[in-house]
Amino acid sequence: MANCIAGAFQAPYAKRHAPQRIAAVFSAALLLVAVACQLSAAADPLPSWNDGPAKSAIVAFVDRVTREGSPGFVRPEERIATFDNDGTLWCEQPNYVQVIFAVERLKSLATRHPEWRDEEPYAAMLKANPEQPLGGGLKAFEKLLMATHAGMSTTDFERIVSDWLAHARHPKFERPYTACIYQPMLEVLSFLRASGFKTFIVSGGGAEFMRPWTERAYGVPPEQVIGSTVKTEFKLIDGQPALMRLPEVDFVDDGLGKPVGIGKYIGRRPIAAFGNSDHDIPMLEWTTVADGPRLGMLVHHTDAEREYAYDRNSHVGQLDKGLDVAQARGWTLIDMRRDWKVVFPE
Amino acid sequence: MANCIAGAFQAPYAKRHAPQRIAAVFSAALLLVAVACQLSAAADPLPSWNDGPAKSAIVAFVDRVTREGSPGFVRPEERIATFDNDGTLWCEQPNYVQVIFAVERLKSLATRHPEWRDEEPYAAMLKANPEQPLGGGLKAFEKLLMATHAGMSTTDFERIVSDWLAHARHPKFERPYTACIYQPMLEVLSFLRASGFKTFIVSGGGAEFMRPWTERAYGVPPEQVIGSTVKTEFKLIDGQPALMRLPEVDFVDDGLGKPVGIGKYIGRRPIAAFGNSDHDIPMLEWTTVADGPRLGMLVHHTDAEREYAYDRNSHVGQLDKGLDVAQARGWTLIDMRRDWKVVFPE
Repeated sequence: MANCIAGAFQAPYAKRHAPQRIAAVFSAALLLVAVACQLSAAADPLPSWNDGPAKSAIVAFVDRVTREGSPGFVRPEERIATFDNDGTLWCEQPNYVQVIFAVERLKSLATRHPEWRDEEPYAAMLKANPEQPLGGGLKAFEKLLMATHAGMSTTDFERIVSDWLAHARHPKFERPYTACIYQPMLEVLSFLRASGFKTFIVSGGGAEFMRPWTERAYGVPPEQVIGSTVKTEFKLIDGQPALMRLPEVDFVDDGLGKPVGIGKYIGRRPIAAFGNSDHDIPMLEWTTVADGPRLGMLVHHTDAEREYAYDRNSHVGQLDKGLDVAQARGWTLIDMRRDWKVVFPE
Repeated sequence: MANCIAGAFQAPYAKRHAPQRIAAVFSAALLLVAVACQLSAAADPLPSWNDGPAKSAIVAFVDRVTREGSPGFVRPEERIATFDNDGTLWCEQPNYVQVIFAVERLKSLATRHPEWRDEEPYAAMLKANPEQPLGGGLKAFEKLLMATHAGMSTTDFERIVSDWLAHARHPKFERPYTACIYQPMLEVLSFLRASGFKTFIVSGGGAEFMRPWTERAYGVPPEQVIGSTVKTEFKLIDGQPALMRLPEVDFVDDGLGKPVGIGKYIGRRPIAAFGNSDHDIPMLEWTTVADGPRLGMLVHHTDAEREYAYDRNSHVGQLDKGLDVAQARGWTLIDMRRDWKVVFPE
């Protein structure tokens, strides 16, 4: 909203003549008044959250860092918040969406690769139900990714991802995966941005698997999406420049890699971080074990009816050690069943 | 400016009561009017530029992409501009500032490393004048960087860089290196941002060598600084989290690496790019060889009196092939002597 106002004001800078400029500014002023009235009518920034410790923790933290002159005040430039994606912003059950994408893509490519029928790990994966855990460990998983995520330009990969997401449906909720995002977390993202925060995704998932849709789904632009990457190479192909995706892992933005990714990409320490699994512990440590006001939160999947219930023994998004250390670290658990009025957007 | 207004509006979201909120909004409205008056008095967004093809190219491009409803209009989200640093935003003669920093740091560390006196490439470097080209090629240079840029936490490295920059002086201009930045380019950065652009640095220099000061010098925050990196490791040291800089190159953001860096970090294609050397050619190709309005510019150092004059045969910032292909590619040369009224800020 504030961005729209800033945009309305910025765009004409170059060319408008003074009277037009002043007229534009007065329109912006009127808009501001209209917005102020709207705000006082709808003061709750987190309407999908039930009152409780989780909601209170968020509201109190934002209040503390934005109140000018208070000891907890943080300059807007330093208001960095990071969010895991799988299980924190969207549903990661019955399997990571990107794994389902990879297996389905492997199957659709198999007609061009008859040799896969007799070659592991492909042979097993071609018979696999992508909603079940994949066997074969990390090595097999890497081979799956390289066979399905490399060998094309970044532009082509973006199209492949967008096309797949347009048609794929979540097996339980029968809606696009990009509609299986958490409404209460969308409100947190908006609330933080309206409070001067820059919101980043920091996910073990592929950066280029997320960037085609995060802006529309979450309001997070591609340049604020940090994820795992393959190496790329710049080439002129028939005179046209392209970035080609190579079958080689560049960076794994998971677990201990998350603070590393934050250092590489953001270059300053977040003051708020949201995750849901043990893989997010290093990110939450990097964010919260420091001076000044800090917020660390873990989504606890406790809602078998409206979503899924899983933690210590799950094959995706395992939350085990995190449950043990949260209290000592001052992290707040978000109890999905208790804290959220709705799970997905209407 | 618009950001300040947005900030004034955003910060109170959480807590202010309605009357306060409305008062804040009215103050913002008054501010907008004041700003409008100021704008009509100073309409030239590039006051340090002489009229000519370079200034015209910038103004016409911004006009084209910001005029709503026109065929060249670009959504603000897509308005990405990238800038090389050395020789494009600040002075890179008589040698890259980071090389001077590295050699001076090697000398200051040498008391703790008596073995360097007899070990190459250190022995030669300890005797070298850092304002002259360093011998030994890339291997030697990498050893210099690893000896001086690794083995400490990112926080410590930031302090080391800031301390050095606070005391070091440019040999010709006798002012801090961070004051040897180009006033006309500061105006381009501001003009683009005021026109809804996001401005990024994409430099062969170290990301963490630049991030401590780019926000103050250029208004470019750390998360919009892309540069070369060493690998880092996340560790808890006595319970305190740290990112340790390892003596291993992670990514070289130079030449063909620049579009790769843009793909990794930004994930969308810029529509404007500014460089000054042959190392910037791939970035300008990636930016400009595409549909829609595009701007590619190269700073040509033609001013031996006010700065330096160098191009085809320079040991830093060599501009050779770039001079030959600029016209064919539609890139505009910025002739420092002719186009800039002043070089550095007063």
